[in-house]
Amino acid sequence: MALVCKHGETRADTKPRAIHHLKATPETVHWGYFSPDIKPALIVQSGDLIEAEAITHHAGDAPELMFDEGIERLFTEIDPSTRSPGVHIMTGPIYVEGAEPGDMLEVRYFQMTPRNNYGSNLAANWGHLYQEFGEKERVTIYQLDPNANTASALYAYDFPGKYLVPGTITHCPVCDREPALPGITIPARPHIGTAGVAPAVDAPVSTIPPGLHGGNIDNWRIGAGSTMYYKVQVKGGLFSIGDPHVSQGDGEISGTAIEASLNCLFQIILRKDFSFPSPLLETPNNWIVHGFGADLDEAMKGASMDMLHLLNEHQGLSRNDAYSLMSVAADFGVTQVVDGTLGIHVRIDRNLFPQKGVTKDPS
Amino acid sequence: MALVCKHGETRADTKPRAIHHLKATPETVHWGYFSPDIKPALIVQSGDLIEAEAITHHAGDAPELMFDEGIERLFTEIDPSTRSPGVHIMTGPIYVEGAEPGDMLEVRYFQMTPRNNYGSNLAANWGHLYQEFGEKERVTIYQLDPNANTASALYAYDFPGKYLVPGTITHCPVCDREPALPGITIPARPHIGTAGVAPAVDAPVSTIPPGLHGGNIDNWRIGAGSTMYYKVQVKGGLFSIGDPHVSQGDGEISGTAIEASLNCLFQIILRKDFSFPSPLLETPNNWIVHGFGADLDEAMKGASMDMLHLLNEHQGLSRNDAYSLMSVAADFGVTQVVDGTLGIHVRIDRNLFPQKGVTKDPS
Repeated sequence: MALVCKHGETRADTKPRAIHHLKATPETVHWGYFSPDIKPALIVQSGDLIEAEAITHHAGDAPELMFDEGIERLFTEIDPSTRSPGVHIMTGPIYVEGAEPGDMLEVRYFQMTPRNNYGSNLAANWGHLYQEFGEKERVTIYQLDPNANTASALYAYDFPGKYLVPGTITHCPVCDREPALPGITIPARPHIGTAGVAPAVDAPVSTIPPGLHGGNIDNWRIGAGSTMYYKVQVKGGLFSIGDPHVSQGDGEISGTAIEASLNCLFQIILRKDFSFPSPLLETPNNWIVHGFGADLDEAMKGASMDMLHLLNEHQGLSRNDAYSLMSVAADFGVTQVVDGTLGIHVRIDRNLFPQKGVTKDPS
Repeated sequence: MALVCKHGETRADTKPRAIHHLKATPETVHWGYFSPDIKPALIVQSGDLIEAEAITHHAGDAPELMFDEGIERLFTEIDPSTRSPGVHIMTGPIYVEGAEPGDMLEVRYFQMTPRNNYGSNLAANWGHLYQEFGEKERVTIYQLDPNANTASALYAYDFPGKYLVPGTITHCPVCDREPALPGITIPARPHIGTAGVAPAVDAPVSTIPPGLHGGNIDNWRIGAGSTMYYKVQVKGGLFSIGDPHVSQGDGEISGTAIEASLNCLFQIILRKDFSFPSPLLETPNNWIVHGFGADLDEAMKGASMDMLHLLNEHQGLSRNDAYSLMSVAADFGVTQVVDGTLGIHVRIDRNLFPQKGVTKDPS
């Protein structure tokens, strides 16, 4: 049950319309930034389906496994000096006809399919335990089993120098590869680490810090079957996706997930009937609200206040009732802990509520 | 599968021995503190079962529902001025024959049964949103349905003044009671908020800040079917339990859970064959490690380092491998956010490991 519907009602606006295919090419990606000034890579109408290629900026950690012709073009044709101020390869933007500032984009993620069967985890210089590991960076390459929906480590190597340039290509010689995580198989959780609309800012905005526009939220629950709601900041919304992951823990403690390119099928629906102050995630069983801050405590406060808002404004609970319910039934988790991009999310079970829609009954 | 066992092996030391019944009386509880100087309320041997009464210090929020003769005795006979420096009513201590500093107590929680069908949630002066609620404190009384294993709010009232004395008794007149959370039923997650061994400190130690001895960890997963490991600090261990909850969200954001008295059945096994630096929780599917700190960032660092220790020392992963695995498969959550007792926990799936025991194969 999605937003606004009365219980048991079917929404007419979710009917799939046209389907578009959006390849990631040097002409259809922007690397490291969001901006309202980027020419749309695609123009869609509300209800359209989009199959888009999301490319990991870590494909260069094992180019012989993670590159193909299309990915190699991005890494070789896009000038490294233009990959800033952030690091992620973003496919888009997608212009949604009729979207105006203050509207919401409902993005329904239907399918996330690995483009190849390899991914990279970097213990990065921005990771939580970088000092504790003597300022060493290390790459672990994982192999995916798409049938079992699992991943296991293939080999690892110490990264030479410091990982500073997004899209670094490292040809690690076979002799430097060490075995890693023998006998351990982990569940895959394919998801999109970074997605969002263009912020209404007159300069390129880094893809790294998450914010009200979305961005690098890094919640592994943003996978197939989930829906995200982003608040439109500029005309057309200008939605982009990137930073695909196949597995990540809450906290993303080494600074990265298993970074792996994904083909994503999703639907964008333009919503003018409700508003929410921060990126809102709906999974089959939960509503999840995100807070961000300069430290975890600030992020915690943001997530709390926005969950209070959700329960109060959209479920009609009194603020008093909402606060009590949060304390006894909402679960706060750490989304990520990279400097400047600390995130806390809070999950509440949608099934607790007699009326399943988030927003007030419009009748 | 519990610690140390080889896969498929049966442990002989888990065979239940005697069963003891430990009532909570003014003679068998200590209110607000742990101390190595308290006379044991019970002496047990490794393997013994204990059925102990854990009493909520919030029973006075609805005495007509949450009191019975035994509970009332505690509230009326124990001098309020002695209830310090913490707030929780602790049943015990239990002296374990043969336990020496450095040993571990394995506490297997088998059953947690509500003593009556009522609990209290306080939006407290130590809650995360106290300022945002205009420094108002408010009590919400919940009724439990023990058959459905759910809870729903019965009524709420604004607390008069400031909730400062542990065990305050409030006779809220019926006319001041407001309906709360109409139509909402939440799942019950009965668990123990505070439990642990006596710290080796020559003064009463507050029950409020969690620490290496255990204490107010407030993880709702410490319920029936889970096992906690506490490091013995003084001869006999001197284990106590209190602060029972029937439901709590990760974060316990209002400062309290649904606080409700529980009868707890558990087994204590003395372990001399391994050690762990902080309170370790084992559930059927997870190992969970806890970190504490003056802020969430410090707690996050502690939880990370101890999970690294678990994977490295007890699962035999290299530190490099452990760090990568944590980033892609371990989930960090917020346990609580009260000033001075901020906690982060991290969960890893036990089923990831080919050898299920935490400690190294002793052979």
